[in-house]
This record gives sequence, structure tokens and C-alpha cells, in this order.
Amino acid sequence: MKALVYHGPGRKSWDEVPDPVIQKPSDIIVKIDTTTICGTDLHILKGDVPAVTEGRILGHEGVGTITEVGDAISTLKVGDRVILSCVSACGRCDYCRKGVYSHCRADEGSPGIGWIFGHLIDGTQAEYVRVPFAETSVHKIPEGVSDAEGVLLSDILPTGHEIGVQYGQVKPGDVVAVIGAGPVGLAAILTAGLYGPSRVIAIDLDANRVEEAKKFGATDGVVNSDPDWKEQVLAMTDGLGVDVAIEAVGIPQTFSDCLAITRPAGVVANVGVHGTGVNLPLDTLWISNIKMTMGLVNTNTTDTLLKMVASKKLDATPFVSHTFKLDDILEAYDVFSRAAETKALKVMLTS
Amino acid sequence: MKALVYHGPGRKSWDEVPDPVIQKPSDIIVKIDTTTICGTDLHILKGDVPAVTEGRILGHEGVGTITEVGDAISTLKVGDRVILSCVSACGRCDYCRKGVYSHCRADEGSPGIGWIFGHLIDGTQAEYVRVPFAETSVHKIPEGVSDAEGVLLSDILPTGHEIGVQYGQVKPGDVVAVIGAGPVGLAAILTAGLYGPSRVIAIDLDANRVEEAKKFGATDGVVNSDPDWKEQVLAMTDGLGVDVAIEAVGIPQTFSDCLAITRPAGVVANVGVHGTGVNLPLDTLWISNIKMTMGLVNTNTTDTLLKMVASKKLDATPFVSHTFKLDDILEAYDVFSRAAETKALKVMLTS
Repeated sequence: MKALVYHGPGRKSWDEVPDPVIQKPSDIIVKIDTTTICGTDLHILKGDVPAVTEGRILGHEGVGTITEVGDAISTLKVGDRVILSCVSACGRCDYCRKGVYSHCRADEGSPGIGWIFGHLIDGTQAEYVRVPFAETSVHKIPEGVSDAEGVLLSDILPTGHEIGVQYGQVKPGDVVAVIGAGPVGLAAILTAGLYGPSRVIAIDLDANRVEEAKKFGATDGVVNSDPDWKEQVLAMTDGLGVDVAIEAVGIPQTFSDCLAITRPAGVVANVGVHGTGVNLPLDTLWISNIKMTMGLVNTNTTDTLLKMVASKKLDATPFVSHTFKLDDILEAYDVFSRAAETKALKVMLTS
Repeated sequence: MKALVYHGPGRKSWDEVPDPVIQKPSDIIVKIDTTTICGTDLHILKGDVPAVTEGRILGHEGVGTITEVGDAISTLKVGDRVILSCVSACGRCDYCRKGVYSHCRADEGSPGIGWIFGHLIDGTQAEYVRVPFAETSVHKIPEGVSDAEGVLLSDILPTGHEIGVQYGQVKPGDVVAVIGAGPVGLAAILTAGLYGPSRVIAIDLDANRVEEAKKFGATDGVVNSDPDWKEQVLAMTDGLGVDVAIEAVGIPQTFSDCLAITRPAGVVANVGVHGTGVNLPLDTLWISNIKMTMGLVNTNTTDTLLKMVASKKLDATPFVSHTFKLDDILEAYDVFSRAAETKALKVMLTS
């Protein structure tokens, strides 16, 4: 089969590789119908995620059709159309049994990290993929949900919702700021709306993205290349700052910016994938009663979000900016990595 | 009257100063019966809290007797014995009305910080003190509660409880580590016991303090000058780390140590007063699902803790290591600042 293979920082190619095979009775093989590229894939290609080694097939999002099932599988069958969750969960370990699938301790890849596709085992940017712990890691797609909608439920919708909005404890009346109006930031903006905030402020260097964010529910936008952008944000509150700041970029500056615009007793929810440490000014923060959260998506709200997408309570379709054939994935990477210029959000790759 | 006056970093003296007077109708004047010294006073004397200016009377803990009440006072009277809370709260602003008294926005000292005694206005290490917003900032002491017990409710018991245990979300079965077995760390250890943890590990450089911590409910102790102290802590868990780590020192190393011993999806609750920033290794933490909390005590559980002290459900008496006359406060500071040697915990100063 063909697959997008990582060959070390800055290097990838669309290679002929062996087809995946069932390795354990709880595995399935899925033919990829639609996959996509994540900002995390770009972080990997920059070398920010050293656990990804040369030869790894990238990708952790996808919708596909089951072509083979292991002997232990009883609730899935060949021909089923499924969402591949970016987090693989054994369903049996102590973390899984608490719903913290992000830290599944099963012995696939490295025990303790549920994100293994395109990270610790081969991923979904390929014609076929082996899916471990399939019964507790995929979601059957109901009628009326498109492949593209399903792919958005692999990662960005649950990530924005769980790690941004839920960890941020967004509640009715809150003023919420989201720094970084890329796909995951937009997913946070979209799902924040479920919790009744009074304002949702989209903040990005790109004025176009800030404007686009209003389609996802942002009530206000601030371009943080403006010298007075922080004052603009504070002016949208009572002067003290926002209740919840969601970081959806992954660099030290935006994390620090979140701290700077959050009011006492507010929450900073980090969603970004970071490649370096940041300075935490505890000498001023110790007295602030600010809470900071971070983490990998648990995917324990995927089914909830899937129901809302199916019932059209959540409109995920504006995320899709481009569609390519899977064979043209290198072109799709090029378009996605120049998002400011190409206005790319999620680029769909279809078989 | 006499009072302990700060004269800049490293300098303090027991001076003759003017008696305090009622300035606003909601003030009272209290004659101090018992006060004490806090680790935060030592931080101030090191210059870690630059908001404290020369000439300030230090101290934010105390029990006393009301000698004068302002015209707006209706629920307190001369002769009442009260606990002076370290946080002053107007009871009317938006933060107060949510119970977040730590960030009271009233115009006393600097709006936005409820800790003003010995910080932004004159404090309790004196013969008399002016108490603003008295009706929403003091607690009448019931019969049977000693002055010393009351003084412990001014700050350390609610701080350990709210900022350590409650912000740390300690719950039944948790393994809790407390780094720093000084008074506030011991208050966290004592009050953690209210939430049913399976283990409470006291960690300190001082083997004596670690041993003493067992009187406050620590089930285990680790001396963190041992080269393998982290391995000792991990061995008390399933190898992944503690559920909750409480920082009760206030230096970068102990904050980093808390991060290093906390399991995925655990909580690091910072209680320490910090004088510098720390490095936050977001490059490894972003995926950890660890939550970090910090803050000034809200004192919204003071009444609850007072009831538990009164009913002998919480035994606060082991905190008192030394008792001096208020006139001997300079000697008391000396003993308190050499705690490793003098085995000082809380030094009581009585009129």
C-alpha cells in the first residue's frame, strides 16, 4: 500500500510500504476512506516530538471501512464504517476505567500514552491501518454523518472541547478568549458555545482567521499583532481579564499571553503542543488563584459530540477548507503548512 | 503602642508607634491578645514581597478583644473575642459575593488583594490593630476554643485546607505528597485527612520535621536530601507518582519536584509564596493532563474549620511549639527563623 512516511525532522515521502496485518485478536484492519493532517503532524515534522522515529507512518485522524477483524472482536464487523479516534484505549487499565483514555497503560507503543497512531505505531495517512484495541477505540458512524464530519471527531472537536472548554471550566456568563484560531482553537470556540459564555474572543495574528472565527461562534476578534491587543481584550471584560483563556498555538509567547489576560481566579487551559519549556512567573502568580490545565484529549466526549453532529446541533462542516485525493497528500501538506496564505483549516484527503 | 515595624529588606524593630484609630464606619479596633509569625513574614523580610513598604507593621494573624467599633457595626461589640482573618473582605464586591475573598476589590490597600494586614495596611504584630470591613473579616470565637487555636485559623489552617487540599482536589483513596513540612504544609497534611486519602507523604529536608509530621496525620515520610527520595515516593505509589502534590515551600526546586512526582492526570497545588519565576517544562507536560493550582487563601472555610476545632475533630494544638510575650517578639523571630535548629513550628506571642 501507499503511506506518508516520516524520515526524520523536515523529511517525509509518499512511499510504497507493506500492508498492515492483524497482530492481536483485538485488532482490526481499516481501509482509510478519509484522513487529514493535524498541526501536531507539523510539530512532528519540526522535530518537536522526538518519540516519533524515522520510518513511522504519520496521521492520527481518519474515517474508514473495516476490512478485517481479529478473533476477539464481537461488536464490529467487516464493512462497518468507523471513526478512528486519535487516542487508542484498552478499556481495561485503571486510567481507561476512569475515562482518562489519554493515559491508557496498555502495552501498545509506550504504555501510558493513549495517542499512539502516527506517534508510537503506524498511523492513518495511508491506504490501510491496523487499529489496536478496536472495540474501545473506534466509533461507528451513524447514517447522515459525512466522512469529513467523522474525521473532525477523530481529534480536533474532542480536543477543543475537552482540553480547552471542559478543562477551562467554561460556564454561563464567562468571557472566554481563545489564542490561536487554527482548527483546534476553532473547535474550542465552537464547543465553548455549548456552555453559555457571554463572550468568546478569537485571538490570532491572522486577521482573516479572526474574522473566520465568527462563523464558529466567536463574538469578538482581536489581532494580536496590534500593539494594544491586550488592552483590547481587557476592555471586553471589566478590566480585570477573561475568565478562561485557551492556548491553541503551542509556543511560549502565547502561553504567557494567556496568563497575562486571565483575571484572578480564572483558568488557563493549554491545548497547544509545545516543543520547549516556558517561564512561569510564580512570583506574581502564586497569589493569583489562577488554575492551569493541559493535556492530551481523553476522547471521553467523542460519542456526545458525534450525537450533536448527527443531530445538526453542532455544525462541523466549516472546518473543511480543502479536499485532495489521498495520493496528493504531499501537495495537501504544502497547502496546510502555508495556512496563513492558503487559508487552509482542515484539508480532507479521500481515497 | 508598640509594634513590629518593617524597615526594608532584612530590617525590623519593635517600635513605639501611634495607636490605630477608626478610619471608616465599618472599622473596629482590636487589642491583640495573641499573634504569631508566618513564613510569609520571613519572605517579606527577604524582600520577596516588594508591595510591603518601609514603615509597615507586619503580621496577619491574631486573636484579640474588640476595644472600639465604627458607626456601621451592628453584629460586633466592644469586648467580643475575635479571630482576625489574614484576608480582609468587603463582602460586597463581585469576588466577595462568589466567596473568592482573596481577591476582594474594595478600596483598602490595593483593590484586588484581600491579604492586606502586614502587607498593604498595618498588621497584627502590635498591641492594637485597626480592622477594616470588620463584620465580614473577623470570626467570633466560641467558648472552649483557645487563643492559640484561634490564631491558627487566621491563616495556616484555611490556607493548607483551601489552597493545598481543596485546590488539590484530594479525594478518597488518593496518595498525597506534601513538600515542605512547615506549619502550612502540616496544615495541609492535617486537613487532607478529612478527605480520606490512602497515604499522606510528608517530604522535607529536615528529618525531624518529617517525623513530627506523623503527629499531624502523615502516614509516610521522605527526607528529600536523600539522593533517591523521588524513587522512594514513586515506590509508595504504583510507580506512576502521587495523585496530588502540594508545594508548601516557595522555591523553584520544590515546585519542579512536585511536577516530577505527580502522576498523569494528577494535581500540583502550589501553596508556597514564591520570590522568582520557575521553568515550566511544557514540552513534556502538555501531554500530561496535570493540573496546577495556586493562590491566596479565600478563608471561605474558616468557619467550617473553626467548628471542627471547637468540636475537637481537628486537633490544632501540636502546631504550637513556643510561646513568648509580645514584647519579646524579636527573640521569637530569631527562634522562628532558625526553625530547623529550634524545632519551631508556630511561635505564639501573647499580650
